[in-house]
Amino acid sequence: MPQRVPIVENILSANDRIAEQNRTRLDAAGVFAVNLMASPGAGKTSLIEQTLPRLADRLRVAVVDGDIATSLDADRAAAAGALASIQINTGGECHLDAVMVQSALNQLDLTQFDLLIVENVGNLVCPADFRLGTHKSILIASIPEGDDKPHKYPGMYRGVDALVINKTDLLPYINFRMDFFQRGVEALNPGVISFHLSCRTGEGMDAWIDWVVGQVHR
Amino acid sequence: MPQRVPIVENILSANDRIAEQNRTRLDAAGVFAVNLMASPGAGKTSLIEQTLPRLADRLRVAVVDGDIATSLDADRAAAAGALASIQINTGGECHLDAVMVQSALNQLDLTQFDLLIVENVGNLVCPADFRLGTHKSILIASIPEGDDKPHKYPGMYRGVDALVINKTDLLPYINFRMDFFQRGVEALNPGVISFHLSCRTGEGMDAWIDWVVGQVHR
Repeated sequence: MPQRVPIVENILSANDRIAEQNRTRLDAAGVFAVNLMASPGAGKTSLIEQTLPRLADRLRVAVVDGDIATSLDADRAAAAGALASIQINTGGECHLDAVMVQSALNQLDLTQFDLLIVENVGNLVCPADFRLGTHKSILIASIPEGDDKPHKYPGMYRGVDALVINKTDLLPYINFRMDFFQRGVEALNPGVISFHLSCRTGEGMDAWIDWVVGQVHR
Repeated sequence: MPQRVPIVENILSANDRIAEQNRTRLDAAGVFAVNLMASPGAGKTSLIEQTLPRLADRLRVAVVDGDIATSLDADRAAAAGALASIQINTGGECHLDAVMVQSALNQLDLTQFDLLIVENVGNLVCPADFRLGTHKSILIASIPEGDDKPHKYPGMYRGVDALVINKTDLLPYINFRMDFFQRGVEALNPGVISFHLSCRTGEGMDAWIDWVVGQVHR
Protein backbone atom coordinates (compact mmCIF):
# COMPACT_ATOMS: atom_id res chain seq x y z
CA MET A 1 0.00 0.00 0.00
CA PRO A 2 1.53 3.34 -1.02
CA GLN A 3 2.51 5.68 1.74
CA ARG A 4 0.47 8.88 1.89
CA VAL A 5 2.52 12.01 1.51
CA PRO A 6 0.99 15.29 2.63
CA ILE A 7 0.68 17.69 -0.26
CA VAL A 8 1.55 21.31 0.44
CA GLU A 9 0.13 23.60 -2.16
CA ASN A 10 1.88 26.68 -3.47
CA ILE A 11 5.23 25.74 -2.12
CA LEU A 12 7.39 28.74 -2.79
CA SER A 13 10.60 28.17 -4.62
CA ALA A 14 13.78 28.49 -2.60
CA ASN A 15 14.40 31.85 -4.26
CA ASP A 16 10.95 33.18 -3.43
CA ARG A 17 11.27 32.12 0.20
CA ILE A 18 14.52 34.05 0.56
CA ALA A 19 12.95 36.99 -1.28
CA GLU A 20 10.17 37.05 1.31
CA GLN A 21 12.73 37.04 4.10
CA ASN A 22 14.54 39.94 2.44
CA ARG A 23 11.27 41.86 2.22
CA THR A 24 10.51 41.22 5.87
CA ARG A 25 13.94 42.51 6.90
CA LEU A 26 13.59 45.61 4.73
CA ASP A 27 10.12 46.36 6.09
CA ALA A 28 11.23 45.88 9.69
CA ALA A 29 14.02 48.42 9.13
CA GLY A 30 11.79 50.85 7.25
CA VAL A 31 13.81 50.60 4.04
CA PHE A 32 12.09 51.00 0.68
CA ALA A 33 13.89 48.93 -1.99
CA VAL A 34 13.80 49.01 -5.78
CA ASN A 35 15.07 46.51 -8.33
CA LEU A 36 16.54 48.43 -11.25
CA MET A 37 16.66 46.42 -14.47
CA ALA A 38 17.65 47.18 -18.05
CA SER A 39 19.53 46.10 -21.12
CA PRO A 40 23.32 46.56 -20.95
CA GLY A 41 24.09 50.23 -21.42
CA ALA A 42 20.55 51.57 -21.06
CA GLY A 43 21.72 53.72 -18.18
CA LYS A 44 21.16 51.99 -14.84
CA THR A 45 24.37 53.33 -13.33
CA SER A 46 23.93 56.71 -14.99
CA LEU A 47 20.45 57.02 -13.49
CA ILE A 48 21.88 56.20 -10.07
CA GLU A 49 24.60 58.81 -10.60
CA GLN A 50 22.02 61.45 -11.50
CA THR A 51 19.56 60.42 -8.79
CA LEU A 52 21.76 60.26 -5.69
CA PRO A 53 22.92 63.89 -5.60
CA ARG A 54 19.29 65.01 -6.00
CA LEU A 55 18.27 62.91 -2.98
CA ALA A 56 21.27 63.86 -0.86
CA ASP A 57 19.49 65.99 1.74
CA ARG A 58 16.22 64.04 1.64
CA LEU A 59 16.98 60.31 1.75
CA ARG A 60 19.76 58.04 2.99
CA VAL A 61 20.54 55.71 0.12
CA ALA A 62 22.41 52.42 -0.18
CA VAL A 63 23.21 50.80 -3.53
CA VAL A 64 23.76 47.14 -4.31
CA ASP A 65 25.32 46.56 -7.73
CA GLY A 66 25.12 43.28 -9.53
CA ASP A 67 27.56 42.57 -12.33
CA ILE A 68 29.23 39.68 -14.06
CA ALA A 69 32.62 41.18 -13.31
CA THR A 70 34.30 44.40 -12.08
CA SER A 71 33.25 46.87 -9.42
CA LEU A 72 32.97 49.78 -11.88
CA ASP A 73 29.32 50.39 -11.05
CA ALA A 74 29.65 50.26 -7.27
CA ASP A 75 32.56 52.69 -7.53
CA ARG A 76 30.39 55.09 -9.54
CA ALA A 77 27.52 54.78 -7.04
CA ALA A 78 29.88 55.53 -4.16
CA ALA A 79 31.30 58.55 -5.98
CA ALA A 80 27.75 59.81 -6.59
CA GLY A 81 27.02 59.86 -2.87
CA ALA A 82 25.68 56.44 -1.88
CA LEU A 83 26.19 56.10 1.88
CA ALA A 84 26.95 52.42 1.23
CA SER A 85 27.71 50.71 -2.02
CA ILE A 86 28.09 46.95 -2.28
CA GLN A 87 29.22 45.10 -5.39
CA ILE A 88 27.94 41.61 -6.10
CA ASN A 89 29.92 39.83 -8.77
CA THR A 90 27.64 37.10 -10.04
CA GLY A 91 30.54 35.15 -11.54
CA GLY A 92 28.81 34.63 -14.86
CA GLU A 93 25.21 34.47 -13.70
CA CYS A 94 22.95 36.56 -15.90
CA HIS A 95 20.75 37.94 -13.11
CA LEU A 96 20.67 38.63 -9.40
CA ASP A 97 18.76 36.28 -7.15
CA ALA A 98 17.36 36.62 -3.63
CA VAL A 99 20.33 34.85 -2.04
CA MET A 100 22.79 37.33 -3.54
CA VAL A 101 20.68 40.22 -2.24
CA GLN A 102 20.44 38.53 1.15
CA SER A 103 24.23 38.37 1.36
CA ALA A 104 24.39 42.08 0.51
CA LEU A 105 21.80 42.91 3.19
CA ASN A 106 23.97 41.04 5.68
CA GLN A 107 26.69 43.63 5.06
CA LEU A 108 24.44 46.63 5.71
CA ASP A 109 23.09 48.18 8.89
CA LEU A 110 19.63 48.62 7.41
CA THR A 111 18.51 51.03 10.10
CA GLN A 112 20.84 53.62 8.53
CA PHE A 113 18.97 53.84 5.23
CA ASP A 114 15.66 54.96 3.76
CA LEU A 115 16.14 53.69 0.21
CA LEU A 116 17.98 50.69 -1.20
CA ILE A 117 18.63 50.65 -4.93
CA VAL A 118 19.49 47.21 -6.29
CA GLU A 119 21.08 47.48 -9.73
CA ASN A 120 20.54 44.18 -11.52
CA VAL A 121 22.74 42.63 -14.23
CA GLY A 122 22.23 44.20 -17.66
CA ASN A 123 19.81 41.79 -19.30
CA LEU A 124 16.24 42.05 -20.62
CA VAL A 125 15.38 38.40 -20.08
CA CYS A 126 16.60 36.55 -17.00
CA PRO A 127 16.22 39.16 -14.22
CA ALA A 128 12.45 39.22 -14.83
CA ASP A 129 12.15 35.70 -13.44
CA PHE A 130 13.80 36.22 -10.05
CA ARG A 131 12.17 38.05 -7.18
CA LEU A 132 14.62 39.75 -4.86
CA GLY A 133 12.35 40.99 -2.09
CA THR A 134 12.38 44.58 -3.31
CA HIS A 135 9.18 46.65 -3.23
CA LYS A 136 9.16 47.95 -6.79
CA SER A 137 10.67 46.79 -10.07
CA ILE A 138 11.82 49.54 -12.40
CA LEU A 139 12.84 49.07 -16.01
CA ILE A 140 15.04 51.53 -17.87
CA ALA A 141 14.53 51.56 -21.61
CA SER A 142 16.73 53.77 -23.78
CA ILE A 143 16.05 55.44 -27.09
CA PRO A 144 18.97 53.90 -29.05
CA GLU A 145 17.80 50.38 -28.14
CA GLY A 146 14.93 50.87 -30.55
CA ASP A 147 11.18 51.12 -30.38
CA ASP A 148 10.48 47.39 -30.76
CA LYS A 149 11.81 46.26 -27.39
CA PRO A 150 8.47 45.93 -25.53
CA HIS A 151 7.23 43.72 -28.35
CA LYS A 152 10.35 41.55 -28.21
CA TYR A 153 10.90 41.29 -24.45
CA PRO A 154 7.35 40.98 -23.13
CA GLY A 155 8.26 39.18 -19.89
CA MET A 156 10.34 42.11 -18.72
CA TYR A 157 7.92 44.85 -19.76
CA ARG A 158 4.94 43.01 -18.30
CA GLY A 159 6.36 42.68 -14.80
CA VAL A 160 7.59 46.15 -13.90
CA ASP A 161 6.01 48.84 -11.74
CA ALA A 162 7.59 51.84 -13.44
CA LEU A 163 9.35 52.56 -16.70
CA VAL A 164 12.16 55.07 -17.25
CA ILE A 165 12.79 56.01 -20.88
CA ASN A 166 16.35 57.29 -20.93
CA LYS A 167 18.55 59.07 -23.50
CA THR A 168 15.74 61.25 -24.82
CA ASP A 169 18.49 63.69 -25.89
CA LEU A 170 19.28 61.24 -28.73
CA LEU A 171 15.75 61.35 -30.20
CA PRO A 172 16.74 63.82 -32.95
CA TYR A 173 19.41 61.42 -34.25
CA ILE A 174 17.48 58.13 -34.15
CA ASN A 175 14.37 56.86 -35.86
CA PHE A 176 12.38 55.98 -32.75
CA ARG A 177 8.61 55.77 -33.18
CA MET A 178 7.39 56.68 -29.70
CA ASP A 179 3.81 55.67 -30.51
CA PHE A 180 4.89 52.17 -31.60
CA PHE A 181 6.94 51.81 -28.41
CA GLN A 182 4.07 53.07 -26.24
CA ARG A 183 1.58 50.71 -27.88
CA GLY A 184 3.85 47.80 -26.96
CA VAL A 185 4.14 49.00 -23.38
CA GLU A 186 0.41 49.62 -23.07
CA ALA A 187 -0.49 46.16 -24.38
CA LEU A 188 1.73 44.44 -21.82
CA ASN A 189 1.47 46.73 -18.83
CA PRO A 190 -1.54 49.05 -19.12
CA GLY A 191 -1.21 52.31 -17.28
CA VAL A 192 2.33 51.71 -16.01
CA ILE A 193 3.87 54.99 -14.90
CA SER A 194 6.70 56.17 -17.12
CA PHE A 195 9.34 58.88 -17.00
CA HIS A 196 10.99 60.35 -20.08
CA LEU A 197 14.40 61.70 -19.19
CA SER A 198 18.01 62.13 -20.16
CA CYS A 199 20.71 61.26 -17.65
CA ARG A 200 23.14 63.21 -19.85
CA THR A 201 21.30 66.55 -19.87
CA GLY A 202 19.25 66.10 -16.70
CA GLU A 203 16.03 66.86 -18.58
CA GLY A 204 13.03 65.10 -17.03
CA MET A 205 14.79 64.16 -13.80
CA ASP A 206 12.46 66.17 -11.53
CA ALA A 207 9.36 64.03 -12.10
CA TRP A 208 11.39 60.88 -11.51
CA ILE A 209 12.87 62.21 -8.26
CA ASP A 210 9.45 63.31 -7.00
CA TRP A 211 8.07 59.84 -7.67
CA VAL A 212 10.95 58.11 -5.85
CA VAL A 213 10.60 60.37 -2.82
CA GLY A 214 6.85 59.83 -2.83
CA GLN A 215 7.28 56.06 -2.90
CA VAL A 216 9.67 56.07 0.04
CA HIS A 217 7.48 58.34 2.17
CA ARG A 218 4.11 56.79 1.55
CA MET B 1 32.47 -6.07 -5.13
CA PRO B 2 31.57 -2.84 -6.95
CA GLN B 3 30.76 -3.11 -10.61
CA ARG B 4 33.29 -1.48 -12.88
CA VAL B 5 31.88 1.25 -15.04
CA PRO B 6 33.84 2.35 -18.11
CA ILE B 7 34.77 5.99 -17.90
CA VAL B 8 34.50 7.99 -21.09
CA GLU B 9 36.49 11.17 -20.92
CA ASN B 10 35.45 14.44 -22.47
CA ILE B 11 31.87 13.45 -22.90
CA LEU B 12 30.36 16.33 -24.79
CA SER B 13 27.27 17.89 -23.38
CA ALA B 14 24.04 17.17 -25.21
CA ASN B 15 24.14 20.69 -26.62
CA ASP B 16 27.70 20.35 -27.91
CA ARG B 17 26.92 17.01 -29.58
CA ILE B 18 24.03 18.56 -31.49
CA ALA B 19 26.21 21.54 -32.33
CA GLU B 20 28.76 19.18 -33.88
CA GLN B 21 26.02 17.55 -35.92
CA ASN B 22 24.87 20.96 -37.11
CA ARG B 23 28.42 21.81 -38.15
CA THR B 24 28.78 18.55 -40.04
CA ARG B 25 25.56 19.20 -41.95
CA LEU B 26 26.59 22.77 -42.78
CA ASP B 27 30.02 21.65 -43.97
CA ALA B 28 28.57 18.85 -46.08
CA ALA B 29 26.30 21.36 -47.80
CA GLY B 30 29.05 23.96 -48.19
CA VAL B 31 27.27 26.53 -46.03
CA PHE B 32 29.29 28.99 -43.96
CA ALA B 33 27.39 29.95 -40.81
CA VAL B 34 27.78 32.80 -38.35
CA ASN B 35 26.31 33.31 -34.89
CA LEU B 36 25.41 36.99 -34.51
CA MET B 37 25.20 38.10 -30.89
CA ALA B 38 24.62 41.42 -29.16
CA SER B 39 22.84 43.33 -26.47
CA PRO B 40 19.18 44.14 -27.21
CA GLY B 41 19.09 46.98 -29.70
CA ALA B 42 22.78 47.00 -30.66
CA GLY B 43 21.78 46.44 -34.28
CA LYS B 44 21.75 42.73 -35.14
CA THR B 45 18.72 43.00 -37.40
CA SER B 46 19.85 46.35 -38.77
CA LEU B 47 23.21 44.85 -39.72
CA ILE B 48 21.41 42.01 -41.50
CA GLU B 49 19.21 44.56 -43.29
CA GLN B 50 22.27 46.48 -44.46
CA THR B 51 24.31 43.39 -45.31
CA LEU B 52 21.88 41.35 -47.41
CA PRO B 53 21.34 43.82 -50.27
CA ARG B 54 25.14 44.23 -50.57
CA LEU B 55 25.54 40.45 -50.92
CA ALA B 56 22.59 40.00 -53.27
CA ASP B 57 24.50 39.12 -56.43
CA ARG B 58 27.38 37.39 -54.65
CA LEU B 59 26.00 35.03 -52.00
CA ARG B 60 22.79 33.13 -51.37
CA VAL B 61 21.85 33.89 -47.77
CA ALA B 62 19.47 32.31 -45.26
CA VAL B 63 18.68 33.89 -41.90
CA VAL B 64 17.56 32.20 -38.70
CA ASP B 65 16.20 34.64 -36.13
CA GLY B 66 15.99 33.84 -32.47
CA ASP B 67 13.69 35.87 -30.29
CA ILE B 68 11.69 35.59 -27.12
CA ALA B 69 8.55 36.58 -28.99
CA THR B 70 7.34 38.02 -32.32
CA SER B 71 8.58 37.45 -35.86
CA LEU B 72 9.54 41.10 -36.37
CA ASP B 73 13.18 40.25 -37.10
CA ALA B 74 12.55 37.41 -39.54
CA ASP B 75 10.12 39.68 -41.39
CA ARG B 76 12.81 42.35 -41.68
CA ALA B 77 15.38 39.81 -42.89
CA ALA B 78 12.97 38.55 -45.54
CA ALA B 79 12.22 42.09 -46.67
CA ALA B 80 15.97 42.76 -46.95
CA GLY B 81 16.42 39.89 -49.39
CA ALA B 82 17.08 36.72 -47.39
CA LEU B 83 16.21 33.78 -49.66
CA ALA B 84 14.92 32.02 -46.57
CA SER B 85 14.12 33.47 -43.17
CA ILE B 86 13.13 31.33 -40.23
CA GLN B 87 11.94 32.62 -36.90
CA ILE B 88 12.65 30.68 -33.73
CA ASN B 89 10.61 31.86 -30.78
CA THR B 90 12.48 30.66 -27.73
CA GLY B 91 9.44 31.02 -25.50
CA GLY B 92 11.29 32.84 -22.78
CA GLU B 93 14.73 31.26 -23.16
CA CYS B 94 17.45 33.86 -23.07
CA HIS B 95 19.63 32.31 -25.79
CA LEU B 96 19.55 29.98 -28.76
CA ASP B 97 20.85 26.45 -28.35
CA ALA B 98 22.01 23.83 -30.81
CA VAL B 99 18.67 22.00 -30.79
CA MET B 100 16.79 25.14 -31.82
CA VAL B 101 19.25 25.68 -34.68
CA GLN B 102 18.92 22.01 -35.66
CA SER B 103 15.16 22.41 -35.98
CA ALA B 104 15.70 25.47 -38.18
CA LEU B 105 18.19 23.57 -40.37
CA ASN B 106 15.54 20.88 -40.81
CA GLN B 107 13.35 23.46 -42.52
CA LEU B 108 16.03 24.53 -45.02
CA ASP B 109 17.40 22.93 -48.18
CA LEU B 110 20.98 23.74 -47.24
CA THR B 111 22.28 23.10 -50.77
CA GLN B 112 20.56 26.32 -51.82
CA PHE B 113 22.68 28.61 -49.64
CA ASP B 114 26.25 29.86 -49.24
CA LEU B 115 25.81 31.76 -45.98
CA LEU B 116 23.60 31.20 -42.95
CA ILE B 117 23.25 34.06 -40.50
CA VAL B 118 21.93 33.00 -37.10
CA GLU B 119 20.67 36.00 -35.14
CA ASN B 120 20.78 35.12 -31.47
CA VAL B 121 18.56 36.50 -28.69
CA GLY B 122 19.60 39.99 -27.56
CA ASN B 123 21.69 39.24 -24.48
CA LEU B 124 25.33 39.79 -23.52
CA VAL B 125 25.52 36.87 -21.10
CA CYS B 126 23.78 33.58 -21.85
CA PRO B 127 24.38 33.14 -25.62
CA ALA B 128 28.14 32.99 -24.96
CA ASP B 129 27.73 29.63 -23.25
CA PHE B 130 25.93 27.73 -26.00
CA ARG B 131 27.63 26.47 -29.16
CA LEU B 132 25.32 26.28 -32.12
CA GLY B 133 27.56 24.63 -34.71
CA THR B 134 28.23 27.86 -36.59
CA HIS B 135 31.72 28.60 -37.92
CA LYS B 136 32.23 32.08 -36.53
CA SER B 137 30.81 34.04 -33.62
CA ILE B 138 30.33 37.73 -34.20
CA LEU B 139 29.52 40.30 -31.55
CA ILE B 140 27.94 43.65 -32.30
CA ALA B 141 28.72 46.37 -29.82
CA SER B 142 27.11 49.77 -30.20
CA ILE B 143 28.32 53.20 -29.20
CA PRO B 144 25.32 54.16 -26.98
CA GLU B 145 25.81 51.01 -24.86
CA GLY B 146 28.90 52.65 -23.43
CA ASP B 147 32.61 52.04 -23.44
CA ASP B 148 32.69 49.81 -20.35
CA LYS B 149 30.94 46.78 -21.83
CA PRO B 150 34.03 44.61 -22.56
CA HIS B 151 35.08 45.09 -18.95
CA LYS B 152 31.64 44.11 -17.68
CA TYR B 153 30.75 41.22 -20.01
CA PRO B 154 34.09 39.42 -20.37
CA GLY B 155 32.63 36.02 -21.27
CA MET B 156 31.01 37.39 -24.37
CA TYR B 157 33.92 39.51 -25.53
CA ARG B 158 36.42 36.74 -24.91
CA GLY B 159 34.72 34.16 -27.09
CA VAL B 160 34.02 35.95 -30.36
CA ASP B 161 35.88 35.81 -33.68
CA ALA B 162 34.95 39.28 -34.91
CA LEU B 163 33.60 42.48 -33.43
CA VAL B 164 31.32 44.98 -35.14
CA ILE B 165 31.14 48.39 -33.49
CA ASN B 166 27.86 49.86 -34.69
CA LYS B 167 26.21 53.30 -34.47
CA THR B 168 29.45 55.22 -35.01
CA ASP B 169 27.23 58.06 -36.33
CA LEU B 170 26.26 58.71 -32.69
CA LEU B 171 29.85 59.27 -31.52
CA PRO B 172 29.51 63.10 -31.62
CA TYR B 173 26.58 62.96 -29.17
CA ILE B 174 27.91 60.43 -26.64
CA ASN B 175 30.87 60.37 -24.31
CA PHE B 176 32.43 57.12 -25.56
CA ARG B 177 36.16 56.66 -24.84
CA MET B 178 37.22 54.45 -27.72
CA ASP B 179 40.63 53.80 -26.18
CA PHE B 180 39.07 52.55 -22.91
CA PHE B 181 36.75 50.30 -24.90
CA GLN B 182 39.59 48.98 -27.08
CA ARG B 183 41.77 48.27 -24.03
CA GLY B 184 38.99 46.09 -22.64
CA VAL B 185 38.63 44.23 -25.93
CA GLU B 186 42.37 43.76 -26.32
CA ALA B 187 42.77 42.37 -22.80
CA LEU B 188 40.11 39.72 -23.39
CA ASN B 189 40.51 38.93 -27.06
CA PRO B 190 43.89 40.12 -28.35
CA GLY B 191 43.98 40.92 -32.04
CA VAL B 192 40.30 40.20 -32.69
CA ILE B 193 39.27 41.76 -36.00
CA SER B 194 36.86 44.67 -35.63
CA PHE B 195 34.73 46.77 -37.93
CA HIS B 196 33.56 50.28 -37.11
CA LEU B 197 30.39 51.09 -38.98
CA SER B 198 26.98 52.70 -38.94
CA CYS B 199 23.99 50.73 -40.15
CA ARG B 200 22.12 54.02 -40.34
CA THR B 201 24.50 55.89 -42.66
CA GLY B 202 26.19 52.90 -44.29
CA GLU B 203 29.62 54.24 -43.36
CA GLY B 204 32.16 51.44 -42.85
CA MET B 205 30.01 48.71 -44.42
CA ASP B 206 32.46 47.91 -47.23
CA ALA B 207 35.20 46.43 -45.04
CA TRP B 208 32.63 44.30 -43.23
CA ILE B 209 31.13 43.01 -46.47
CA ASP B 210 34.58 42.19 -47.87
CA TRP B 211 35.40 40.22 -44.74
CA VAL B 212 32.15 38.23 -44.86
CA VAL B 213 32.63 37.37 -48.52
CA GLY B 214 36.24 36.40 -47.85
CA GLN B 215 35.17 34.10 -45.02
CA VAL B 216 32.60 32.30 -47.14
CA HIS B 217 34.96 31.81 -50.07
CA ARG B 218 38.06 30.70 -48.25
